[in-house]
Amino acid sequence: MQNFYDLAIIGAGIAGVSSAVYAKRAGLKFVIFESGSVGGQLLLMERVDNFIGLGLNVSGYQLAEQLSKTLNDLGIQLIFEKVIKINTEEKIVKIWTEKNFYTSKALIISTGASFKKLKIKGEDEFIGKGVSYCAVCDGFFFKNKTVAVIGGGNTAAQEALYLSNICAKIFLIHRRDKLRALNYLQEALFKKENLKIIYNHIVTQINGKNFVEEIILEDTENKLKKNLNVDAIFIAIGATANTQIFKGIIDIDADGFILTDERLKTSLDFIWAAGDCRRRPLRQLITAAAEGSIAAIEAYKYLKTAYISI
Amino acid sequence: MQNFYDLAIIGAGIAGVSSAVYAKRAGLKFVIFESGSVGGQLLLMERVDNFIGLGLNVSGYQLAEQLSKTLNDLGIQLIFEKVIKINTEEKIVKIWTEKNFYTSKALIISTGASFKKLKIKGEDEFIGKGVSYCAVCDGFFFKNKTVAVIGGGNTAAQEALYLSNICAKIFLIHRRDKLRALNYLQEALFKKENLKIIYNHIVTQINGKNFVEEIILEDTENKLKKNLNVDAIFIAIGATANTQIFKGIIDIDADGFILTDERLKTSLDFIWAAGDCRRRPLRQLITAAAEGSIAAIEAYKYLKTAYISI
Repeated sequence: MQNFYDLAIIGAGIAGVSSAVYAKRAGLKFVIFESGSVGGQLLLMERVDNFIGLGLNVSGYQLAEQLSKTLNDLGIQLIFEKVIKINTEEKIVKIWTEKNFYTSKALIISTGASFKKLKIKGEDEFIGKGVSYCAVCDGFFFKNKTVAVIGGGNTAAQEALYLSNICAKIFLIHRRDKLRALNYLQEALFKKENLKIIYNHIVTQINGKNFVEEIILEDTENKLKKNLNVDAIFIAIGATANTQIFKGIIDIDADGFILTDERLKTSLDFIWAAGDCRRRPLRQLITAAAEGSIAAIEAYKYLKTAYISI
Repeated sequence: MQNFYDLAIIGAGIAGVSSAVYAKRAGLKFVIFESGSVGGQLLLMERVDNFIGLGLNVSGYQLAEQLSKTLNDLGIQLIFEKVIKINTEEKIVKIWTEKNFYTSKALIISTGASFKKLKIKGEDEFIGKGVSYCAVCDGFFFKNKTVAVIGGGNTAAQEALYLSNICAKIFLIHRRDKLRALNYLQEALFKKENLKIIYNHIVTQINGKNFVEEIILEDTENKLKKNLNVDAIFIAIGATANTQIFKGIIDIDADGFILTDERLKTSLDFIWAAGDCRRRPLRQLITAAAEGSIAAIEAYKYLKTAYISI
């Protein structure tokens, strides 16, 4: 069967590419699917400077290019098809893309995650023009400016703290009457003189000409609206793992993240998950890259054991 | 106290340097000790081309240089002193080097491991030129070549199997009359047509001009010698973690590797371990780098919680 593989990898972000490199070296007959571009969320990152070994002045785009080059140099061909459905039958994974059908003895899921959106007017329009989902990526563009951070969890608190060292004024806007962030983060927030927390308000609209100029806030109790002048809005209301098509097949937590053991095995012993789509302690490029390599080697070991002939 | 730090890192291999970069970004007052050179075992690696993001033509030396440069660019000063003893008292780590005494609120151990050597003629001379201690790292360089693997345990068996997909011919050489490797591994080995197991032989010498060309085998029974032409020799007789000074302070397994949880915490909640000194599923540069970052962020979280003023 032409479309029958030892290993399939879904997603060519840094985790998936890392898996592919290790799978290639291990001599596996494998396939890697990508529905967008190699690098995934990397392409949205202005600067990558905590990826050890790369130095301090690399853009996300450059790293993504490097990944493409590595795949090319190793003769790894990607299949640019969107996987729309998977199923399993007797330890074989069946994979449907929009165009074709594939089967594989093992699967690595590295589909990443996407930031949750507010789904309000102006949000999509001003992405990259004052609307951001990552303070560490974009905060520097708003040095000495006024910004809003939306959310009340650990991420929102950390982003607000991060921005408090860069921006002139930060508004942390939360829809409830207290934050969900851990105590020590809250205490740190309360000490920041250039940071104001606005409770019980949601953002209903983002306005501006070419760039963000104001946001419209609505009081969650009396529904009164007011405008707030800001140069940027950082939306930190969580991330959604790109795992919809795996629901019901492997264990996934309430937030949509795939559950694995330390060796990245999912609830099925021939499927692994690596990178942002997985429930994990630290979401960084370097950890995603490492997970990709671990998943590939674990898949390889499994294939060696279960299929003695490989 | 001048020598009192939030965090101490022992070892400036890739795990330790990764920890240092994250500690710096987190604004911690930290120190990193190295008794040799930045990069550690990297300096022994002829080529590093499974470190995703770096491309395929980087030497271990170049990566080590890049680590030094990153430390320098971030203004991180190493202390080139050998740590000879540590102790703990009420959640404070006391650190003695040959020259000085230091204390720290938290500790990351990234002291690495050393592969056990055969201690034979030619071994050191041909490291990176056909002598390797890691098939996953270096196997690809010997595609369609003839190689020897030395050892009889699980690692040797796994390395031989791994190489059997890449190399033309593999000799697995073991000093006893049967392997120690697990049954399923042995069964897989026996099925490989390009793999021959040579029992009751040791390697006494490695010869070549610029690269490995042959090894000398000695029959352990009658002491007769013969030569075997190979392009590479993979020595898989075990590794020793550099953890002697931590014995009795944190939990260490029978082979000397530090035991941690998934977040790299040791048996003491203010000490973490990252990289080759730790008991871990996959020993690779990329996983060591990732562990360094995880350990630093976990240490940062601990310090934030236990010492609110940081």
